[in-house]
Amino acid sequence: MRARIVARHVATLITALLVAQSLLPPPKAISAAATRVETQSTTPTQTTDWEEKLRTQPRAENLREYMRVLAAEPHHIGSAAGKRNAEWMRDQFKAWGLEAKLEEFDVLFPTPKERVLELVSPNKYQAKLKEPVLSEDTDSGDANQLPTYNAYSGDGDVTAPLVYVNYGVPADYEQLAKLGVDVKGKIVIARYGASWRGIKPKVAYEHGAVGCLIYSDPKEDGYYQGDVYPQGPFRPEFGVQRGSVMDMPIHPGDPLTPGWGATKNARRLARDEAKTLMKIPVLPISYGDALPLLKALAGPVAPDSWRGALPLTYHIGGTETAKVRLKVTSDWSIHTLYNVVARIEGSTYLDEWIIRGNHHDAWVNGADDPISGMVAVLEEARAFGELLKQGWRPKRTLVFCGWDGEEPGLLGSTEWVEQHAEELQQKAVAYINSDSTSRGWFGAGGSHTLERFVNDAMQAVRDPKGRGSLWEAARARRGGQEARSDLRIGALGSGSDYTAFLDHLGIASLNIGFGGEVSGGIYHSIYDSIAWYTKFSDGNFEFGRTLVQAAGTLTMRLADAEILPFEFTNFAETVDGYVEEIAKLPQQGVDLQPLRKAAGKLKLSADGYDRALRSLIAAGKRPANLKALNALLYQSERKLLSKAGLPRREWFKHQIYAPGFYTGYGVKTLPGVREALEQKNWAEANEQVKIVSQTIDAMSAQIEAATDKLQSK
Amino acid sequence: MRARIVARHVATLITALLVAQSLLPPPKAISAAATRVETQSTTPTQTTDWEEKLRTQPRAENLREYMRVLAAEPHHIGSAAGKRNAEWMRDQFKAWGLEAKLEEFDVLFPTPKERVLELVSPNKYQAKLKEPVLSEDTDSGDANQLPTYNAYSGDGDVTAPLVYVNYGVPADYEQLAKLGVDVKGKIVIARYGASWRGIKPKVAYEHGAVGCLIYSDPKEDGYYQGDVYPQGPFRPEFGVQRGSVMDMPIHPGDPLTPGWGATKNARRLARDEAKTLMKIPVLPISYGDALPLLKALAGPVAPDSWRGALPLTYHIGGTETAKVRLKVTSDWSIHTLYNVVARIEGSTYLDEWIIRGNHHDAWVNGADDPISGMVAVLEEARAFGELLKQGWRPKRTLVFCGWDGEEPGLLGSTEWVEQHAEELQQKAVAYINSDSTSRGWFGAGGSHTLERFVNDAMQAVRDPKGRGSLWEAARARRGGQEARSDLRIGALGSGSDYTAFLDHLGIASLNIGFGGEVSGGIYHSIYDSIAWYTKFSDGNFEFGRTLVQAAGTLTMRLADAEILPFEFTNFAETVDGYVEEIAKLPQQGVDLQPLRKAAGKLKLSADGYDRALRSLIAAGKRPANLKALNALLYQSERKLLSKAGLPRREWFKHQIYAPGFYTGYGVKTLPGVREALEQKNWAEANEQVKIVSQTIDAMSAQIEAATDKLQSK
Repeated sequence: MRARIVARHVATLITALLVAQSLLPPPKAISAAATRVETQSTTPTQTTDWEEKLRTQPRAENLREYMRVLAAEPHHIGSAAGKRNAEWMRDQFKAWGLEAKLEEFDVLFPTPKERVLELVSPNKYQAKLKEPVLSEDTDSGDANQLPTYNAYSGDGDVTAPLVYVNYGVPADYEQLAKLGVDVKGKIVIARYGASWRGIKPKVAYEHGAVGCLIYSDPKEDGYYQGDVYPQGPFRPEFGVQRGSVMDMPIHPGDPLTPGWGATKNARRLARDEAKTLMKIPVLPISYGDALPLLKALAGPVAPDSWRGALPLTYHIGGTETAKVRLKVTSDWSIHTLYNVVARIEGSTYLDEWIIRGNHHDAWVNGADDPISGMVAVLEEARAFGELLKQGWRPKRTLVFCGWDGEEPGLLGSTEWVEQHAEELQQKAVAYINSDSTSRGWFGAGGSHTLERFVNDAMQAVRDPKGRGSLWEAARARRGGQEARSDLRIGALGSGSDYTAFLDHLGIASLNIGFGGEVSGGIYHSIYDSIAWYTKFSDGNFEFGRTLVQAAGTLTMRLADAEILPFEFTNFAETVDGYVEEIAKLPQQGVDLQPLRKAAGKLKLSADGYDRALRSLIAAGKRPANLKALNALLYQSERKLLSKAGLPRREWFKHQIYAPGFYTGYGVKTLPGVREALEQKNWAEANEQVKIVSQTIDAMSAQIEAATDKLQSK
Repeated sequence: MRARIVARHVATLITALLVAQSLLPPPKAISAAATRVETQSTTPTQTTDWEEKLRTQPRAENLREYMRVLAAEPHHIGSAAGKRNAEWMRDQFKAWGLEAKLEEFDVLFPTPKERVLELVSPNKYQAKLKEPVLSEDTDSGDANQLPTYNAYSGDGDVTAPLVYVNYGVPADYEQLAKLGVDVKGKIVIARYGASWRGIKPKVAYEHGAVGCLIYSDPKEDGYYQGDVYPQGPFRPEFGVQRGSVMDMPIHPGDPLTPGWGATKNARRLARDEAKTLMKIPVLPISYGDALPLLKALAGPVAPDSWRGALPLTYHIGGTETAKVRLKVTSDWSIHTLYNVVARIEGSTYLDEWIIRGNHHDAWVNGADDPISGMVAVLEEARAFGELLKQGWRPKRTLVFCGWDGEEPGLLGSTEWVEQHAEELQQKAVAYINSDSTSRGWFGAGGSHTLERFVNDAMQAVRDPKGRGSLWEAARARRGGQEARSDLRIGALGSGSDYTAFLDHLGIASLNIGFGGEVSGGIYHSIYDSIAWYTKFSDGNFEFGRTLVQAAGTLTMRLADAEILPFEFTNFAETVDGYVEEIAKLPQQGVDLQPLRKAAGKLKLSADGYDRALRSLIAAGKRPANLKALNALLYQSERKLLSKAGLPRREWFKHQIYAPGFYTGYGVKTLPGVREALEQKNWAEANEQVKIVSQTIDAMSAQIEAATDKLQSK
């Protein structure tokens, strides 16, 4: 469910948020030296023969064929097609020579029972709440589509005045207060954008609203951006963005089993004990349905920056003039989800796992989201299967995962991580995620201890458009001629299945894919189909094929490295940058000195490891205890957790990266301190400074232990 | 026809252009000292008793009544109602005790014969070209309305592909070239904004287009800005901005009598000799009519900054897909215009004239444009008439003018100025213009030799909203606490009747009015009615009444001053600023040293006059020859002309201010040099530097002569 960059020219705020979580760091945040020769990783990796063989394996026609199968029918969690897909993938993995099985969890997944939206005054309008079938795209008429809805909306039937709240983020409510408008007892209508959708009803509820509509304004997601489907790739008049409004910044996964696996007989909370269910009814609507509602609004004219591209004068409303009725009820059943888990056992380090994953469930047919990425994981597994037949074996164990139930709230991956937490803490070396992928440039986000590793690996993969290596293509696009040798990767917030790995368990993670060239408006709609994808996105699967090569290269290098390619100088520099960002926030009596000190120490430790590694290689030596060294390296990310987790959301334990409490997907770095400062909670900021500093110090100690291990005879 | 600021939030470019010609200099260009005590004008004026009496005269109910009469019917040039209005005003002036007469000129004024606009492919659409009558505004159904058209459009009947050219200014054609689109043999559609309308067909023609449509996009001039008429003040779906497309940057006035008065028996050019007639058919249309045309366009998607607020994807077009037929023919008759000219003879300096004017013709009913301003001139004349009855007489002669034919091209004022050029050169002390006026803050533009005078006078007039004096209200709005004691006034481009006075004859001019609070979308439409004005603009005429006080104060002070209140230090500082602006433009081998030198000398001369005047006053002395001194003072603006005029448009002789060749209304300061640099014509720039420097030197010499005269015993 990775948020697509739906607009080519989005508001600054939106851009900032998307960039923060994006695979594609913004051009100006990126730097690259004229040459990387001197700064090439010093980490020895495997011989490249097998790597090159691997990269010749993937076939575009296979990707197309897998997509034909997997995106043929609506296949959301709990659907017959979803189960069939899981079984088919399991069987494919097996046919290619991998071990494979399904792992089931039983999770709360609400589906729509009643959905009513009507304008009751000043005139009547019954919202369609239905996406039209297109003759140009027969899949848009498939049976068993989930209606347009927001999963985990509260049940309710409310009639109240309507208020337009722009994006519905906290700053918008400050503006409303200035205009003398409040939302207490009212229904708000917010446009998509500027935050993850679940933030909108949450903030509305905090301000006393009794219902929430979320619509796609054509300014960001419709005709203003370009021609609409089927003429062009953008969202048509009655297209709707489905999606979850579970309060995922508290915790993702099954709302009834927070922190533990939702197995058949697991302990479960009662529904009213669950913390992540939205309290008020919420419904996503098309701009076609929003038009008559927004037209009916009276009250002040909306500020300039609040105006979208609908043909009307945007008013705030909030008066008795325009009233709507919103009724939403769900079937709150438990559904079984089917994760697909396949393995290739490692020859040397059986208990060191490289995990590669993508979700397979969609809101509807999901050719783009998630099948474009899922088919790359399949083809990657097939490629490794081929190598197996030719005599290659990975040193470490490879795990290929197809997650179910990602769309409603990262259910499959979260439950799996929670269920296998102890084993994963011991064995997981890294997690590499992908999700939707399209055309453009390779992008990666994730743990900065892997930043150099990603930079190195991407020099081995050719850009499908002949722009040199993926690294060279990305660097050229970013245009910079700065001193830094490595292209920066973005920090991860949330929005896809790396979340539990990284934020809950401290497993170093990467999220990768291609993007930047195509944008479109079919996200979470019935038009996310094979027809759309092949017409407007990576129709010849050349970037998909390249994604197999890129992910395969990363996976193989991690699997076969003598010394795992973790590197700490980039990480230390990045953390230092975060501290400097935080120092610029307003603060009263908050002492950041401990943080600065910890960041300084981290740099020294990182430099020490780097120097020691270079000396070792220069001397042509090998560390005495590789296994112990590698354990220290891949366990280093665990040191970035605090046991208590973040304030008011203990599930999130990572102290460097977290999704924002009020941004949703958007990352907050050094979140404990940053969010306390943003909320002007100076006391909490001081406490968090201590916790984060101690966490960074623990990381420094771990790096120093690794340095010692490297040097021990 | 002063361009209204139709949008509250207009694009930067538009703002820049409007500000350049605006009554209301932009906030940041304004500065004011905490106190003006020390910098009060040292020019002795008349006692303030009569001034205070004058300011008690104006009555809001009179303004309302004059508007009821003058805006009752459509009264464009050549209409029966226009002639009746002129006669009524003449009779009013007489009734109030002034001499008054009509002065007629016979001018070329085309009116529509045929207007056809149809989309011929890919589907048919017949444009309405008609503004609907509103039951809420009965005047919208008046007989004898001029149809929607652009006066001085070429005659033609063309069918060709349509191209969207954004605002249709030169920069837009550079962008089109980058996109690989040309307009040769095609019909362009441009949106209103960013330039005076006449620039759009002119630039289109220069690029080979065969026709030009100009439409009001709702982004700048419609529902995006706010509620549309009659619910709100903004332009409704089928509202159209009429207007002239005469090539006024060449010269305004009758196209057949350039430079001389269009009297009955005057020599006239043949139509094909006239330089200011547009060569291709041009038609203004509503956004209602533009919608189907723009929807039909194929070709590239328009750049982000080109997109307006219509519910469609903006395409460039230019392909064979969308073709339109445009047919425009006019009745090219000569019409008689009726200027109203009233006088109060001066008691002392009969041959020194203070001229006050506003136009009386409208495109339709014109309650706002121009009647809101015309009624203030009438009431001002009535007020002076009252003082006459009470025994006051002006020292200098007052001339009150109601111009006809302003809308098509400043016809009435230009012909009058040309006809009386010799006498005016001798006698005109200053010209004070007004046009439409609304609510908000007092603003002035004009000759900077009068900047301090305006600042002083506006301290004597109370703001109707209790914000102190007009000067204090304007200063508070501008917010600045800068060192400069005087609020800056803007330079004048074109767009109203000061043009011939200032640019052709070098008569120091001011253009004044209220604005900044109201914006609306009835400019040049049938909805510019009494109903609109009283509902959405200065409905209780409190600002109109204040305009009478302000203009009356300016007029009386000029009429009665012992030493005319011209002042040169502000002018010198302003010119120096223009030179510095020009120095920042790209230039190759252009030597600006002569300009810098001239500007430096000007400063010294100005300071010399200022010092001499202060000494004189401190010593309690009077100059020996007041008449000679005053002649030097008011003749000083004449020194800013060059006989040869500007390159390629000799009618424009002022070397400091001119409307831009490619902006229309928007002012270009030091136009000879600035436009040569903008066009990268380095040779011409060097020539113009010489001419402008000599002009400034002549001004310095005149100021020094005035200083001598001041000091002579």
